[in-house]
Amino acid sequence: MTAESFRALHRAGQPLLLPNAWDYASAAALVDAGFAAVGTTSLGVAAAHGLPDGHGVTRAETLALARRLARLPCHLTVDIEAGFSDDPTDVVRLARDLAAAGAVGVNIEDGRADGTLAPAGAQCELIGEVKAQVPDLFLNARTDTHWLTGAHPSPLDEAVARARAYRSAGADGIFVPGLADDAGIRTVVSAVDAPVNVLYLPGRHTVRQLADLGVCRISCGSLLFRAAIHAAVAAARTIERGESLQGNPPGYAEIVDLIDRWA
Amino acid sequence: MTAESFRALHRAGQPLLLPNAWDYASAAALVDAGFAAVGTTSLGVAAAHGLPDGHGVTRAETLALARRLARLPCHLTVDIEAGFSDDPTDVVRLARDLAAAGAVGVNIEDGRADGTLAPAGAQCELIGEVKAQVPDLFLNARTDTHWLTGAHPSPLDEAVARARAYRSAGADGIFVPGLADDAGIRTVVSAVDAPVNVLYLPGRHTVRQLADLGVCRISCGSLLFRAAIHAAVAAARTIERGESLQGNPPGYAEIVDLIDRWA
Repeated sequence: MTAESFRALHRAGQPLLLPNAWDYASAAALVDAGFAAVGTTSLGVAAAHGLPDGHGVTRAETLALARRLARLPCHLTVDIEAGFSDDPTDVVRLARDLAAAGAVGVNIEDGRADGTLAPAGAQCELIGEVKAQVPDLFLNARTDTHWLTGAHPSPLDEAVARARAYRSAGADGIFVPGLADDAGIRTVVSAVDAPVNVLYLPGRHTVRQLADLGVCRISCGSLLFRAAIHAAVAAARTIERGESLQGNPPGYAEIVDLIDRWA
Repeated sequence: MTAESFRALHRAGQPLLLPNAWDYASAAALVDAGFAAVGTTSLGVAAAHGLPDGHGVTRAETLALARRLARLPCHLTVDIEAGFSDDPTDVVRLARDLAAAGAVGVNIEDGRADGTLAPAGAQCELIGEVKAQVPDLFLNARTDTHWLTGAHPSPLDEAVARARAYRSAGADGIFVPGLADDAGIRTVVSAVDAPVNVLYLPGRHTVRQLADLGVCRISCGSLLFRAAIHAAVAAARTIERGESLQGNPPGYAEIVDLIDRWA
Protein backbone atom coordinates (compact mmCIF):
# COMPACT_ATOMS: atom_id res chain seq x y z
CA MET A 1 0.00 0.00 0.00
CA THR A 2 1.58 3.23 -1.21
CA ALA A 3 0.46 6.73 -2.02
CA GLU A 4 0.68 5.69 -5.67
CA SER A 5 -1.58 2.66 -5.30
CA PHE A 6 -3.93 4.86 -3.27
CA ARG A 7 -3.88 7.50 -6.01
CA ALA A 8 -4.88 4.80 -8.51
CA LEU A 9 -8.11 4.23 -6.57
CA HIS A 10 -9.25 7.76 -7.52
CA ARG A 11 -10.82 6.93 -10.85
CA ALA A 12 -13.06 9.14 -12.96
CA GLY A 13 -16.24 7.18 -13.61
CA GLN A 14 -15.50 4.70 -10.82
CA PRO A 15 -14.77 6.81 -7.77
CA LEU A 16 -13.31 5.70 -4.48
CA LEU A 17 -16.01 5.44 -1.82
CA LEU A 18 -14.05 6.15 1.33
CA PRO A 19 -15.59 5.00 4.60
CA ASN A 20 -14.28 6.82 7.67
CA ALA A 21 -13.42 5.11 10.93
CA TRP A 22 -12.89 6.54 14.40
CA ASP A 23 -11.28 3.63 16.22
CA TYR A 24 -9.62 0.31 15.53
CA ALA A 25 -12.80 -1.76 15.60
CA SER A 26 -14.68 0.41 13.13
CA ALA A 27 -11.72 0.43 10.75
CA ALA A 28 -11.17 -3.32 11.00
CA ALA A 29 -14.85 -3.99 10.38
CA LEU A 30 -14.78 -1.80 7.27
CA VAL A 31 -11.69 -3.58 5.94
CA ASP A 32 -13.34 -6.89 6.73
CA ALA A 33 -16.33 -5.72 4.68
CA GLY A 34 -14.08 -5.32 1.68
CA PHE A 35 -13.17 -1.65 1.58
CA ALA A 36 -9.69 -1.20 0.15
CA ALA A 37 -9.16 2.20 1.73
CA VAL A 38 -10.24 3.68 5.04
CA GLY A 39 -10.12 7.26 6.20
CA THR A 40 -10.48 8.67 9.66
CA THR A 41 -13.11 11.16 10.76
CA SER A 42 -11.80 13.96 12.93
CA LEU A 43 -15.26 14.45 14.47
CA GLY A 44 -15.43 10.79 15.40
CA VAL A 45 -11.91 10.67 16.81
CA ALA A 46 -12.49 13.85 18.81
CA ALA A 47 -15.93 12.85 20.10
CA ALA A 48 -14.71 9.39 21.06
CA HIS A 49 -12.28 11.17 23.37
CA GLY A 50 -14.73 13.83 24.58
CA LEU A 51 -12.88 16.55 22.71
CA PRO A 52 -14.09 19.16 20.22
CA ASP A 53 -13.57 18.72 16.49
CA GLY A 54 -11.70 21.25 14.39
CA HIS A 55 -9.97 22.87 17.34
CA GLY A 56 -6.58 21.27 16.84
CA VAL A 57 -6.63 19.39 20.13
CA THR A 58 -6.51 15.76 19.00
CA ARG A 59 -3.03 15.46 17.53
CA ALA A 60 -1.92 12.75 19.96
CA GLU A 61 -5.15 10.77 19.65
CA THR A 62 -5.03 10.95 15.86
CA LEU A 63 -1.44 9.76 15.65
CA ALA A 64 -2.09 6.97 18.17
CA LEU A 65 -5.08 5.83 16.11
CA ALA A 66 -3.09 5.87 12.87
CA ARG A 67 -0.42 3.72 14.48
CA ARG A 68 -3.08 1.23 15.56
CA LEU A 69 -4.68 1.16 12.11
CA ALA A 70 -1.39 0.66 10.32
CA ARG A 71 -1.59 -3.11 10.74
CA LEU A 72 -4.78 -3.31 8.69
CA PRO A 73 -4.43 -4.42 5.07
CA CYS A 74 -5.90 -1.25 3.58
CA HIS A 75 -4.91 2.15 2.33
CA LEU A 76 -5.11 4.51 5.29
CA THR A 77 -5.68 8.23 4.95
CA VAL A 78 -5.82 10.40 8.03
CA ASP A 79 -7.90 13.50 8.71
CA ILE A 80 -5.55 15.88 10.51
CA GLU A 81 -7.92 18.86 10.57
CA ALA A 82 -5.75 21.93 9.84
CA GLY A 83 -2.63 20.11 11.02
CA PHE A 84 -3.13 20.64 14.76
CA SER A 85 -0.70 23.56 14.76
CA ASP A 86 -0.17 26.98 13.25
CA ASP A 87 3.48 26.10 12.71
CA PRO A 88 4.10 24.27 9.41
CA THR A 89 7.12 22.58 11.01
CA ASP A 90 4.78 20.79 13.41
CA VAL A 91 2.50 19.74 10.58
CA VAL A 92 5.43 18.39 8.58
CA ARG A 93 6.58 16.42 11.62
CA LEU A 94 3.11 14.93 12.05
CA ALA A 95 2.89 14.07 8.35
CA ARG A 96 6.27 12.35 8.57
CA ASP A 97 5.16 10.38 11.65
CA LEU A 98 1.96 9.33 9.89
CA ALA A 99 3.83 8.20 6.80
CA ALA A 100 6.28 6.31 9.01
CA ALA A 101 3.31 4.64 10.72
CA GLY A 102 2.05 3.45 7.35
CA ALA A 103 -0.55 6.03 6.32
CA VAL A 104 -0.65 6.73 2.59
CA GLY A 105 -2.66 9.93 2.74
CA VAL A 106 -3.74 12.92 4.78
CA ASN A 107 -6.52 15.48 4.61
CA ILE A 108 -5.53 19.03 5.51
CA GLU A 109 -8.31 21.62 5.78
CA ASP A 110 -8.30 25.39 5.51
CA GLY A 111 -11.27 25.95 7.81
CA ARG A 112 -10.47 27.40 11.20
CA ALA A 113 -12.20 26.94 14.54
CA ASP A 114 -13.46 30.54 14.41
CA GLY A 115 -15.39 29.82 11.21
CA THR A 116 -12.98 31.64 8.89
CA LEU A 117 -10.79 30.26 6.14
CA ALA A 118 -7.02 30.35 6.46
CA PRO A 119 -5.47 32.82 4.01
CA ALA A 120 -4.98 31.00 0.71
CA GLY A 121 -1.33 31.99 0.50
CA ALA A 122 -0.48 30.60 3.92
CA GLN A 123 -2.39 27.41 3.13
CA CYS A 124 -0.44 26.99 -0.12
CA GLU A 125 2.83 27.39 1.78
CA LEU A 126 1.71 24.72 4.25
CA ILE A 127 0.70 22.33 1.47
CA GLY A 128 3.95 22.96 -0.41
CA GLU A 129 6.04 22.41 2.69
CA VAL A 130 4.32 19.13 3.61
CA LYS A 131 4.60 17.79 0.04
CA ALA A 132 8.25 18.85 -0.20
CA GLN A 133 9.19 17.17 3.06
CA VAL A 134 6.88 14.13 2.91
CA PRO A 135 6.28 13.46 -0.79
CA ASP A 136 5.06 9.90 -0.16
CA LEU A 137 1.68 10.98 1.20
CA PHE A 138 -1.36 11.63 -0.98
CA LEU A 139 -2.21 15.12 0.22
CA ASN A 140 -5.91 15.80 -0.07
CA ALA A 141 -6.38 19.54 0.34
CA ARG A 142 -9.75 20.35 1.79
CA THR A 143 -11.30 23.73 1.32
CA ASP A 144 -14.17 24.67 3.59
CA THR A 145 -15.73 27.28 1.34
CA HIS A 146 -19.02 25.36 1.35
CA TRP A 147 -18.74 23.73 4.74
CA LEU A 148 -18.29 26.98 6.67
CA THR A 149 -21.30 28.75 5.27
CA GLY A 150 -20.73 32.46 5.45
CA ALA A 151 -16.96 32.17 5.31
CA HIS A 152 -16.99 33.64 1.84
CA PRO A 153 -19.59 35.56 -0.24
CA SER A 154 -18.92 33.50 -3.41
CA PRO A 155 -18.21 29.98 -2.20
CA LEU A 156 -17.93 28.39 -5.63
CA ASP A 157 -15.57 31.02 -7.02
CA GLU A 158 -13.48 30.75 -3.89
CA ALA A 159 -13.48 26.96 -4.05
CA VAL A 160 -12.26 27.04 -7.65
CA ALA A 161 -9.56 29.60 -6.86
CA ARG A 162 -8.36 27.66 -3.85
CA ALA A 163 -8.53 24.30 -5.62
CA ARG A 164 -6.28 25.64 -8.37
CA ALA A 165 -3.92 27.29 -5.91
CA TYR A 166 -3.67 24.20 -3.68
CA ARG A 167 -3.09 22.01 -6.70
CA SER A 168 -0.32 24.29 -7.90
CA ALA A 169 1.19 24.17 -4.43
CA GLY A 170 1.41 20.39 -4.68
CA ALA A 171 -1.88 18.97 -3.44
CA ASP A 172 -2.68 15.56 -4.90
CA GLY A 173 -6.44 15.86 -4.50
CA ILE A 174 -9.02 18.52 -3.73
CA PHE A 175 -11.83 18.00 -1.23
CA VAL A 176 -14.80 20.37 -1.10
CA PRO A 177 -17.19 19.08 1.58
CA GLY A 178 -20.66 20.54 1.29
CA LEU A 179 -20.34 21.07 -2.46
CA ALA A 180 -23.55 19.37 -3.49
CA ASP A 181 -25.16 20.94 -6.56
CA ASP A 182 -24.50 19.32 -9.91
CA ALA A 183 -23.34 22.48 -11.63
CA GLY A 184 -20.98 23.35 -8.81
CA ILE A 185 -19.46 19.89 -8.77
CA ARG A 186 -18.95 19.97 -12.54
CA THR A 187 -17.35 23.40 -12.28
CA VAL A 188 -14.77 22.29 -9.71
CA VAL A 189 -14.07 19.03 -11.54
CA SER A 190 -13.44 20.95 -14.77
CA ALA A 191 -11.36 23.62 -13.10
CA VAL A 192 -8.68 21.45 -11.54
CA ASP A 193 -6.49 18.67 -12.95
CA ALA A 194 -6.63 16.55 -9.81
CA PRO A 195 -9.10 14.09 -8.32
CA VAL A 196 -12.03 15.94 -6.79
CA ASN A 197 -13.51 14.63 -3.56
CA VAL A 198 -16.94 15.45 -2.15
CA LEU A 199 -18.73 14.47 1.02
CA TYR A 200 -21.51 11.92 0.74
CA LEU A 201 -24.76 13.57 1.79
CA PRO A 202 -27.66 11.18 2.43
CA GLY A 203 -30.52 11.62 -0.01
CA ARG A 204 -28.59 14.01 -2.24
CA HIS A 205 -26.63 11.93 -4.74
CA THR A 206 -25.87 8.27 -5.18
CA VAL A 207 -22.32 7.09 -5.79
CA ARG A 208 -23.29 6.52 -9.43
CA GLN A 209 -24.57 10.07 -9.82
CA LEU A 210 -21.40 11.51 -8.30
CA ALA A 211 -19.35 9.30 -10.60
CA ASP A 212 -21.22 10.71 -13.57
CA LEU A 213 -20.42 14.23 -12.37
CA GLY A 214 -16.70 13.40 -12.50
CA VAL A 215 -16.07 13.03 -8.77
CA CYS A 216 -13.14 10.69 -8.07
CA ARG A 217 -13.55 10.24 -4.32
CA ILE A 218 -16.60 10.23 -2.07
CA SER A 219 -16.00 10.51 1.65
CA CYS A 220 -18.42 9.38 4.29
CA GLY A 221 -17.03 11.94 6.75
CA SER A 222 -18.59 11.48 10.17
CA LEU A 223 -21.72 9.76 8.84
CA LEU A 224 -20.75 6.20 9.77
CA PHE A 225 -19.71 7.34 13.25
CA ARG A 226 -23.01 9.12 13.70
CA ALA A 227 -24.90 6.08 12.47
CA ALA A 228 -23.01 3.95 14.98
CA ILE A 229 -23.80 6.18 17.95
CA HIS A 230 -27.41 6.34 16.82
CA ALA A 231 -27.62 2.55 16.59
CA ALA A 232 -26.19 2.05 20.08
CA VAL A 233 -28.70 4.41 21.69
CA ALA A 234 -31.54 3.03 19.60
CA ALA A 235 -30.68 -0.51 20.72
CA ALA A 236 -30.63 0.51 24.39
CA ARG A 237 -34.00 2.22 24.04
CA THR A 238 -35.45 -0.75 22.20
CA ILE A 239 -34.39 -3.07 25.01
CA GLU A 240 -35.79 -0.64 27.57
CA ARG A 241 -39.15 -0.67 25.81
CA GLY A 242 -39.23 -4.45 25.74
CA GLU A 243 -39.21 -4.57 21.97
CA SER A 244 -37.18 -6.78 19.66
CA LEU A 245 -33.86 -5.56 18.34
CA GLN A 246 -33.66 -5.06 14.60
CA GLY A 247 -30.69 -6.13 12.54
CA ASN A 248 -28.23 -8.85 13.23
CA PRO A 249 -25.11 -7.44 14.85
CA PRO A 250 -21.97 -9.57 15.04
CA GLY A 251 -21.67 -11.79 18.10
CA TYR A 252 -19.01 -11.53 20.78
CA ALA A 253 -16.88 -14.19 19.09
CA GLU A 254 -17.04 -12.42 15.75
CA ILE A 255 -15.61 -9.25 17.28
CA VAL A 256 -12.91 -11.29 19.01
CA ASP A 257 -12.04 -12.85 15.64
CA LEU A 258 -12.04 -9.45 13.96
CA ILE A 259 -9.51 -8.09 16.44
CA ASP A 260 -7.41 -11.26 16.33
CA ARG A 261 -7.33 -11.35 12.55
CA TRP A 262 -4.73 -8.63 12.10
CA ALA A 263 -3.18 -8.72 15.57
CA MET B 1 -23.61 10.24 42.41
CA THR B 2 -22.33 7.82 45.01
CA ALA B 3 -22.07 4.08 45.39
CA GLU B 4 -25.12 4.36 47.67
CA SER B 5 -27.28 6.18 45.13
CA PHE B 6 -26.08 3.67 42.53
CA ARG B 7 -27.01 0.80 44.85
CA ALA B 8 -30.50 2.27 45.13
CA LEU B 9 -30.97 1.84 41.38
CA HIS B 10 -30.83 -1.96 41.86
CA ARG B 11 -34.48 -2.55 42.65
CA ALA B 12 -36.29 -5.84 42.74
CA GLY B 13 -39.26 -5.56 40.40
CA GLN B 14 -37.82 -2.49 38.69
CA PRO B 15 -34.29 -3.43 37.70
CA LEU B 16 -31.53 -1.20 36.47
CA LEU B 17 -31.07 -1.54 32.72
CA LEU B 18 -27.40 -0.73 32.33
CA PRO B 19 -26.23 0.33 28.88
CA ASN B 20 -22.51 -0.14 28.28
CA ALA B 21 -20.33 2.40 26.51
CA TRP B 22 -16.85 2.05 24.99
CA ASP B 23 -15.86 5.67 24.44
CA TYR B 24 -16.89 9.16 25.46
CA ALA B 25 -19.35 9.71 22.62
CA SER B 26 -21.28 6.50 23.21
CA ALA B 27 -21.50 7.22 26.94
CA ALA B 28 -22.57 10.82 26.43
CA ALA B 29 -25.23 9.78 23.94
CA LEU B 30 -26.62 7.24 26.42
CA VAL B 31 -26.72 9.82 29.20
CA ASP B 32 -28.36 12.25 26.80
CA ALA B 33 -30.98 9.56 26.09
CA GLY B 34 -31.89 9.52 29.77
CA PHE B 35 -29.95 6.62 31.23
CA ALA B 36 -29.03 7.36 34.85
CA ALA B 37 -26.17 4.89 34.93
CA VAL B 38 -23.65 3.81 32.31
CA GLY B 39 -21.24 0.90 32.40
CA THR B 40 -18.27 0.20 30.21
CA THR B 41 -17.79 -2.89 28.05
CA SER B 42 -14.34 -4.40 28.22
CA LEU B 43 -14.79 -5.94 24.77
CA GLY B 44 -15.70 -2.57 23.32
CA VAL B 45 -12.85 -0.73 25.02
CA ALA B 46 -10.35 -3.39 23.97
CA ALA B 47 -11.61 -3.66 20.39
CA ALA B 48 -11.67 0.11 19.98
CA HIS B 49 -7.93 -0.02 20.70
CA GLY B 50 -7.24 -3.13 18.64
CA LEU B 51 -6.54 -5.17 21.76
CA PRO B 52 -7.95 -8.51 22.97
CA ASP B 53 -10.67 -8.63 25.62
CA GLY B 54 -10.22 -10.53 28.85
CA HIS B 55 -6.44 -10.66 28.62
CA GLY B 56 -5.70 -7.95 31.13
CA VAL B 57 -4.04 -5.64 28.63
CA THR B 58 -6.31 -2.58 28.70
CA ARG B 59 -5.70 -1.18 32.18
CA ALA B 60 -4.42 2.17 30.92
CA GLU B 61 -7.16 2.53 28.29
CA THR B 62 -9.86 1.66 30.83
CA LEU B 63 -8.63 4.15 33.40
CA ALA B 64 -8.24 6.87 30.76
CA LEU B 65 -11.79 6.24 29.59
CA ALA B 66 -13.17 6.36 33.14
CA ARG B 67 -11.45 9.71 33.67
CA ARG B 68 -13.06 11.04 30.51
CA LEU B 69 -16.50 9.75 31.47
CA ALA B 70 -16.33 11.19 34.98
CA ARG B 71 -17.68 14.53 33.79
CA LEU B 72 -20.96 12.98 32.66
CA PRO B 73 -23.94 13.39 35.00
CA CYS B 74 -24.50 9.67 35.49
CA HIS B 75 -23.52 6.79 37.71
CA LEU B 76 -20.45 5.24 36.16
CA THR B 77 -19.46 1.63 36.70
CA VAL B 78 -16.34 0.25 35.08
CA ASP B 79 -15.65 -3.22 33.72
CA ILE B 80 -12.10 -4.01 34.81
CA GLU B 81 -12.06 -7.64 33.61
CA ALA B 82 -10.21 -9.60 36.33
CA GLY B 83 -8.45 -6.46 37.54
CA PHE B 84 -5.71 -6.40 34.89
CA SER B 85 -3.25 -7.99 37.29
CA ASP B 86 -2.69 -11.12 39.36
CA ASP B 87 -1.55 -8.92 42.22
CA PRO B 88 -4.44 -7.70 44.42
CA THR B 89 -2.36 -4.63 45.31
CA ASP B 90 -2.51 -3.54 41.69
CA VAL B 91 -6.25 -4.11 41.56
CA VAL B 92 -6.77 -2.08 44.73
CA ARG B 93 -4.70 0.73 43.27
CA LEU B 94 -6.81 0.71 40.11
CA ALA B 95 -10.04 0.65 42.12
CA ARG B 96 -8.82 3.61 44.14
CA ASP B 97 -7.92 5.52 40.98
CA LEU B 98 -11.33 4.78 39.49
CA ALA B 99 -13.12 5.94 42.63
CA ALA B 100 -10.98 9.07 42.67
CA ALA B 101 -11.93 9.67 39.03
CA GLY B 102 -15.60 9.53 39.98
CA ALA B 103 -16.67 5.97 39.22
CA VAL B 104 -19.22 4.55 41.66
CA GLY B 105 -18.84 0.90 40.71
CA VAL B 106 -16.65 -1.78 39.20
CA ASN B 107 -17.16 -5.24 37.76
CA ILE B 108 -14.52 -7.81 38.65
CA GLU B 109 -14.71 -11.20 36.94
CA ASP B 110 -13.36 -14.60 37.87
CA GLY B 111 -12.97 -15.86 34.32
CA ARG B 112 -9.42 -16.13 33.05
CA ALA B 113 -8.02 -15.77 29.56
CA ASP B 114 -7.28 -19.51 29.44
CA GLY B 115 -10.98 -20.34 29.89
CA THR B 116 -10.72 -21.41 33.51
CA LEU B 117 -12.19 -19.82 36.61
CA ALA B 118 -9.94 -18.28 39.23
CA PRO B 119 -9.94 -20.33 42.46
CA ALA B 120 -12.90 -19.16 44.53
CA GLY B 121 -10.73 -18.58 47.59
CA ALA B 122 -8.32 -16.31 45.78
CA GLN B 123 -11.21 -14.42 44.20
CA CYS B 124 -12.79 -13.90 47.62
CA GLU B 125 -9.51 -12.52 48.92
CA LEU B 126 -9.34 -10.11 45.99
CA ILE B 127 -12.94 -8.97 46.52
CA GLY B 128 -12.37 -8.57 50.25
CA GLU B 129 -9.20 -6.59 49.74
CA VAL B 130 -10.75 -4.21 47.21
CA LYS B 131 -13.83 -3.62 49.41
CA ALA B 132 -11.66 -3.10 52.50
CA GLN B 133 -9.43 -0.57 50.80
CA VAL B 134 -12.01 1.14 48.56
CA PRO B 135 -15.36 0.76 50.31
CA ASP B 136 -16.99 3.53 48.28
CA LEU B 137 -17.27 1.46 45.12
CA PHE B 138 -20.22 -0.81 44.37
CA LEU B 139 -18.34 -4.02 43.68
CA ASN B 140 -20.20 -6.21 41.23
CA ALA B 141 -18.62 -9.65 41.40
CA ARG B 142 -18.97 -11.45 38.11
CA THR B 143 -18.74 -15.19 37.95
CA ASP B 144 -18.16 -16.76 34.58
CA THR B 145 -19.58 -20.19 35.37
CA HIS B 146 -22.07 -19.84 32.52
CA TRP B 147 -20.07 -17.61 30.24
CA LEU B 148 -17.06 -19.91 30.02
CA THR B 149 -18.95 -23.01 29.06
CA GLY B 150 -16.97 -26.01 30.11
CA ALA B 151 -15.23 -24.23 32.96
CA HIS B 152 -17.25 -26.25 35.43
CA PRO B 153 -19.38 -29.42 35.18
CA SER B 154 -22.26 -27.98 37.26
CA PRO B 155 -22.40 -24.30 36.30
CA LEU B 156 -25.48 -23.47 38.36
CA ASP B 157 -24.20 -25.10 41.54
CA GLU B 158 -20.88 -23.38 41.07
CA ALA B 159 -22.57 -20.04 40.40
CA VAL B 160 -24.58 -20.33 43.61
CA ALA B 161 -21.53 -21.33 45.65
CA ARG B 162 -19.44 -18.51 44.23
CA ALA B 163 -22.23 -15.95 44.55
CA ARG B 164 -22.57 -16.75 48.25
CA ALA B 165 -18.82 -16.75 48.79
CA TYR B 166 -18.28 -13.47 46.92
CA ARG B 167 -21.14 -11.89 48.81
CA SER B 168 -19.65 -13.02 52.12
CA ALA B 169 -16.32 -11.58 51.02
CA GLY B 170 -17.96 -8.19 50.59
CA ALA B 171 -19.31 -8.05 47.04
CA ASP B 172 -22.24 -5.63 46.67
CA GLY B 173 -23.77 -7.39 43.69
CA ILE B 174 -23.45 -10.66 41.79
CA PHE B 175 -23.27 -10.86 38.01
CA VAL B 176 -23.76 -14.15 36.18
CA PRO B 177 -23.53 -13.46 32.45
CA GLY B 178 -24.97 -16.25 30.35
CA LEU B 179 -27.38 -17.34 33.08
CA ALA B 180 -30.53 -17.36 30.99
CA ASP B 181 -33.01 -20.03 32.05
CA ASP B 182 -35.84 -18.99 34.36
CA ALA B 183 -35.22 -21.67 36.97
CA GLY B 184 -31.51 -20.91 37.12
CA ILE B 185 -32.11 -17.19 37.50
CA ARG B 186 -34.64 -17.80 40.28
CA THR B 187 -32.19 -20.13 42.02
CA VAL B 188 -29.37 -17.58 42.09
CA VAL B 189 -31.70 -14.75 43.10
CA SER B 190 -33.00 -16.84 46.02
CA ALA B 191 -29.57 -18.01 47.06
CA VAL B 192 -27.91 -14.67 47.62
CA ASP B 193 -28.95 -11.57 49.57
CA ALA B 194 -27.54 -9.13 47.05
CA PRO B 195 -28.73 -7.68 43.76
CA VAL B 196 -28.36 -10.22 40.97
CA ASN B 197 -27.27 -9.02 37.56
CA VAL B 198 -27.68 -10.88 34.27
CA LEU B 199 -26.66 -10.12 30.72
CA TYR B 200 -29.36 -9.05 28.30
CA LEU B 201 -29.60 -11.65 25.54
CA PRO B 202 -31.64 -10.59 22.50
CA GLY B 203 -34.75 -12.66 22.03
CA ARG B 204 -34.43 -14.44 25.35
CA HIS B 205 -36.12 -12.28 27.98
CA THR B 206 -37.57 -8.80 28.08
CA VAL B 207 -36.65 -6.41 30.88
CA ARG B 208 -40.10 -7.03 32.34
CA GLN B 209 -39.60 -10.80 32.37
CA LEU B 210 -36.22 -10.47 34.05
CA ALA B 211 -37.78 -8.10 36.59
CA ASP B 212 -40.39 -10.74 37.38
CA LEU B 213 -37.62 -13.29 37.94
CA GLY B 214 -36.10 -11.03 40.60
CA VAL B 215 -33.15 -9.69 38.62
CA CYS B 216 -32.05 -6.26 39.89
CA ARG B 217 -29.67 -5.30 37.11
CA ILE B 218 -29.59 -6.09 33.40
CA SER B 219 -26.38 -5.34 31.56
CA CYS B 220 -26.14 -4.80 27.84
CA GLY B 221 -22.54 -5.98 27.83
CA SER B 222 -20.97 -5.54 24.41
CA LEU B 223 -24.29 -5.58 22.57
CA LEU B 224 -24.57 -1.84 21.97
CA PHE B 225 -20.96 -1.72 20.79
CA ARG B 226 -21.61 -4.57 18.39
CA ALA B 227 -24.79 -2.87 17.15
CA ALA B 228 -22.78 0.29 16.54
CA ILE B 229 -20.06 -1.41 14.51
CA HIS B 230 -22.73 -3.27 12.58
CA ALA B 231 -24.56 -0.02 11.80
CA ALA B 232 -21.41 1.71 10.56
CA VAL B 233 -20.56 -1.10 8.15
CA ALA B 234 -24.18 -1.46 7.06
CA ALA B 235 -24.35 2.26 6.28
CA ALA B 236 -21.16 2.12 4.20
CA ARG B 237 -22.47 -0.87 2.25
CA THR B 238 -25.83 0.80 1.73
CA ILE B 239 -24.13 3.85 0.28
CA GLU B 240 -21.95 1.64 -1.90
CA ARG B 241 -25.06 -0.07 -3.31
CA GLY B 242 -26.69 3.26 -4.06
CA GLU B 243 -29.56 2.59 -1.67
CA SER B 244 -31.13 4.93 0.87
CA LEU B 245 -29.87 4.95 4.42
CA GLN B 246 -32.34 3.80 7.04
CA GLY B 247 -32.78 5.58 10.34
CA ASN B 248 -32.09 9.16 11.18
CA PRO B 249 -28.67 9.54 12.77
CA PRO B 250 -27.80 12.76 14.56
CA GLY B 251 -26.26 15.47 12.40
CA TYR B 252 -22.75 16.87 12.74
CA ALA B 253 -23.99 19.78 14.85
CA GLU B 254 -25.83 17.45 17.23
CA ILE B 255 -22.63 15.53 17.94
CA VAL B 256 -20.78 18.81 18.46
CA ASP B 257 -23.48 19.88 20.93
CA LEU B 258 -23.33 16.53 22.69
CA ILE B 259 -19.59 16.85 23.28
CA ASP B 260 -19.89 20.52 24.29
CA ARG B 261 -22.71 19.88 26.73
CA TRP B 262 -20.58 18.43 29.50
CA ALA B 263 -17.22 19.85 28.42
